[in-house]
Amino acid sequence: MTIYRHFYVKSHAKTTPDINLKDLPGSAGRLDVIARCINAAFWLSYGIRKDVVFHTILHGEPNPPVYIRMEGEKLRKVSPDERNIAIFIKKALERMKEDKEIESTPGIFVSKKSFEQLLEENKGRDFYLLDENGESIEKVEISSKPFFFLGDYKDLEEEEKELLYDYGAQPVSIGKNSYLSSHCIVIINWWLDRKGF
Amino acid sequence: MTIYRHFYVKSHAKTTPDINLKDLPGSAGRLDVIARCINAAFWLSYGIRKDVVFHTILHGEPNPPVYIRMEGEKLRKVSPDERNIAIFIKKALERMKEDKEIESTPGIFVSKKSFEQLLEENKGRDFYLLDENGESIEKVEISSKPFFFLGDYKDLEEEEKELLYDYGAQPVSIGKNSYLSSHCIVIINWWLDRKGF
Repeated sequence: MTIYRHFYVKSHAKTTPDINLKDLPGSAGRLDVIARCINAAFWLSYGIRKDVVFHTILHGEPNPPVYIRMEGEKLRKVSPDERNIAIFIKKALERMKEDKEIESTPGIFVSKKSFEQLLEENKGRDFYLLDENGESIEKVEISSKPFFFLGDYKDLEEEEKELLYDYGAQPVSIGKNSYLSSHCIVIINWWLDRKGF
Repeated sequence: MTIYRHFYVKSHAKTTPDINLKDLPGSAGRLDVIARCINAAFWLSYGIRKDVVFHTILHGEPNPPVYIRMEGEKLRKVSPDERNIAIFIKKALERMKEDKEIESTPGIFVSKKSFEQLLEENKGRDFYLLDENGESIEKVEISSKPFFFLGDYKDLEEEEKELLYDYGAQPVSIGKNSYLSSHCIVIINWWLDRKGF
């Protein structure tokens, strides 16, 4: 049985396809951060992790929230560099419909969806919130339906954390340092590999 | 006493400042890979790791080898995104002198240097070669003068590995998967943090 690894990273990236690819960290709202998180979630040296599903909700102006999901089993054509990943997010924003989810390119799904809707739709999974004050990932028994939640360069809002706790989320820590979100994902993936997931 | 962490990643990037920033993975010779390795080596969410020294030798045409060293204690102005890191490598290539090492921007040093010269100059350190067939990093007693060696998207050449072994390098493995070089660096940094380095 395949154990799917789900990751959610909140994004403050802008929600218009008018993205300046030369300025991902600035005017695009730290789209570079999300791009690196996607790289961290999926890539191995010989290809894509098929057992990963990556979720983000873009919260930037002018049209938030935009929910994007990437499924490793179906993901095609994307390269691991920031610029290329950003191009695929741009395509998702260009092709998005207001009233239904569409697959903008192979393995990338886009729709209007709130954080609460996302949690509700995934409540069959076990939620883990990355939190420096949580229990060490080395001591936590990770379930076979894990879903990890992270902020981008900003932490999740208190209300989002409370909502996660309402859905039974467990706070887990990967150490005393405050790591980049993309590095957290690399470490979690490695830890799960090591545990034989 | 600060324990410095040295990393070397071989690069196949081109050795002219005529870099197309829109095409780091292609015409620039996978400069995106080195940029992500630099991100992985230095960045924490609140700043730069001052205890890291990152080395690379660019082996691409037209003027190899070009040796670049980045010192965390002195590194300034660089942002963690691929494009920005590539801009600083471009500046190093623009300002390089054929006959002596210069500091092209704060904390970035560039010169003409071969891999063998690099090893000779650093022979007081303990060399670890990332190798899937090496001993698990979990079992290796890492010294207080560690220097880790990795390939980029290509493995090191056999002659380079033999030279490393001549200098006493120990092969270490971080698991059965073949990880991206940048992910290897994230994992090594995390492992050293965890061990209290």
